[in-house]
Amino acid sequence: MFNFKLICKDGEARAGEMATAHGTVLTPTFIPVGTQATVKTISPMELRKIGAQIVLSNTYHLALRPGAAVIKAAGGLHQFMGWDGATLTDSGGYQLMSLAPLCKISEKGVGFQSHFDGRRYFFTPENVIELQGEIGADLIMPLDECCSYPCEHDQAKRAMELTCRWAERSKKAHHSNAQALFGIIQGGLYPELRVECIKNLTSLGFDGYALGGISVGEAKILTYELLNECLSLLPEDKPRYVMGMGTPLDLLEGVKRGADMFDCILPTRYGRNGTAWTSSGKVIVRNAENVSLFIPLDESCECYTCRHFTRAYLRHLFSVNEILGMSLVTYHNLFFYMSLMAGMREAIVKGKFQEFYNEFLIKNKEVENV
Amino acid sequence: MFNFKLICKDGEARAGEMATAHGTVLTPTFIPVGTQATVKTISPMELRKIGAQIVLSNTYHLALRPGAAVIKAAGGLHQFMGWDGATLTDSGGYQLMSLAPLCKISEKGVGFQSHFDGRRYFFTPENVIELQGEIGADLIMPLDECCSYPCEHDQAKRAMELTCRWAERSKKAHHSNAQALFGIIQGGLYPELRVECIKNLTSLGFDGYALGGISVGEAKILTYELLNECLSLLPEDKPRYVMGMGTPLDLLEGVKRGADMFDCILPTRYGRNGTAWTSSGKVIVRNAENVSLFIPLDESCECYTCRHFTRAYLRHLFSVNEILGMSLVTYHNLFFYMSLMAGMREAIVKGKFQEFYNEFLIKNKEVENV
Repeated sequence: MFNFKLICKDGEARAGEMATAHGTVLTPTFIPVGTQATVKTISPMELRKIGAQIVLSNTYHLALRPGAAVIKAAGGLHQFMGWDGATLTDSGGYQLMSLAPLCKISEKGVGFQSHFDGRRYFFTPENVIELQGEIGADLIMPLDECCSYPCEHDQAKRAMELTCRWAERSKKAHHSNAQALFGIIQGGLYPELRVECIKNLTSLGFDGYALGGISVGEAKILTYELLNECLSLLPEDKPRYVMGMGTPLDLLEGVKRGADMFDCILPTRYGRNGTAWTSSGKVIVRNAENVSLFIPLDESCECYTCRHFTRAYLRHLFSVNEILGMSLVTYHNLFFYMSLMAGMREAIVKGKFQEFYNEFLIKNKEVENV
Repeated sequence: MFNFKLICKDGEARAGEMATAHGTVLTPTFIPVGTQATVKTISPMELRKIGAQIVLSNTYHLALRPGAAVIKAAGGLHQFMGWDGATLTDSGGYQLMSLAPLCKISEKGVGFQSHFDGRRYFFTPENVIELQGEIGADLIMPLDECCSYPCEHDQAKRAMELTCRWAERSKKAHHSNAQALFGIIQGGLYPELRVECIKNLTSLGFDGYALGGISVGEAKILTYELLNECLSLLPEDKPRYVMGMGTPLDLLEGVKRGADMFDCILPTRYGRNGTAWTSSGKVIVRNAENVSLFIPLDESCECYTCRHFTRAYLRHLFSVNEILGMSLVTYHNLFFYMSLMAGMREAIVKGKFQEFYNEFLIKNKEVENV
């Protein structure tokens, strides 16, 4: 069912096609985050209009509420959330570390209490595959141990090795042809640990490979350096997914280094806070200058928000706490991200990625602003 | 520009057409409430899909934020909020009484402090017409004094008489052909005061007549009795607007008695709280029974929400505090209201209003439930 085809390369940048049971995803792609089976403030119909082809949900959150059994009974995640495009579920490894109090990791798995009601759970590589089987996403992720930043070499090594052993158990527990299983590469900011992890996981063989545990607080230069070192070691014929990283500049730098897939909460979270990305940098909707600025967020943007509403109106919505403001800016941000991905893909196909890259940086005058 | 045409009557129930500078409104009609220049959680595009033809905003709220001058500079309310259908602005009389602290009423007008930042304002009949001129809605309302419930006869009389004098001043201040000015009938629950007010206002002559100060806490039977007494005294050839009243049963009972227009926060507020009106009564989305109920809110409803999402999914969205839940249920509620109005209109045109009325009550088994 799942198939990845590399269409062409321009430098290290790649254009591909990822076939899933719920449609083809053109890569490089950005995956809007729908942690709790909904992309915050956005309907599935709007996601389609925005151009999304795949949406991410989170196993940890869904297992807690409403529970994997409810989603299974609904006919799976697509049916449950009314989204007929492709889906991916993260394993919840990252959420375990960041959200669950009294989280205890052992060889067997992770014991934790729900951040929501304190109920006790025990996740193992095997039952996380099973949970994701019930949830029914097209792409699933194995349980991993994700280190925070900074992280000592010893701890990063131990976590990477556990992640590898868990990946092996996950692969053994995974019997579905309908769901593609990715391997998650850990190892902190230590290149030699990442290399070892890549060797391990590629010898096991997965449908795709993800870089986990990055964009967790380290300097951008270190993230990009790590991408340089890791991405080129991954098999050409499998999709490469950089998890949780995603300012527009990150996407540009990631694609440049050969990444195919990204997810990030930034466009939706910033949207709800009233910060918009535009072709000429960030716009803070609440800023006083917008009070009577009757121009769109982005003159050159074709999205519903920019075609119908002014900055003055959006600022009004935010200043009187109207929800429509959050959804309109979120809509724009996701549209901006999708357009950026589509623009990069087109440039790669035409062999003009470097031009696209340069032009983007010029338009976004300040690097801090992208 | 403004014109009302009575198409036909079935008993007291009326079907009409109200021409405005922004399209024709078929009556009886329900006016979704967009207090702050937005119908909460719903975009103008969605309003169109729902079938809305006219939207209400509030002069009090808009004068405070963003200020009438900003809306004027935007090109008026329609431009500002991206809604090309008809609009109506309430004067803010009701909001003054209920929201503004230290509100002081005199013959000249109302002095008050903003509920938001304490800033001082003074509303007069004249400057409220002027403010609404800047805002630019198709239908505007004069400043009135709205009594709370219960209200002594003396106080209701004094408020009604002031409302009449203010109505006269409003009419004198109103010079726009583009904006229709309604008269607001006050007088509490005292029929003789209402009758006197109607005599006064109809002799002044307005483009339409509104019943204000009802549905403010009194028993339904008293509201309906008052409608009986007032509506038949209003001129046949002008639209009749019952302000702020609007459970589905209220709409039914109002139309039966000859009302043409309604507005109410209920479908939107209930939508945000997770209560849906359906063809067989109310559904409380959060109820435990909905956890794994994979049916729509209303099997017979054709709205986007009911065609794509189950009660189980909506319950999940509410239980994890996702905004999409609020907008999907609001969407359904408004669609339900619009369908109810369209159904009533069709029945009136066919001379079958009483059958429609009876059928509605039978489907909604418990009267308390509508």
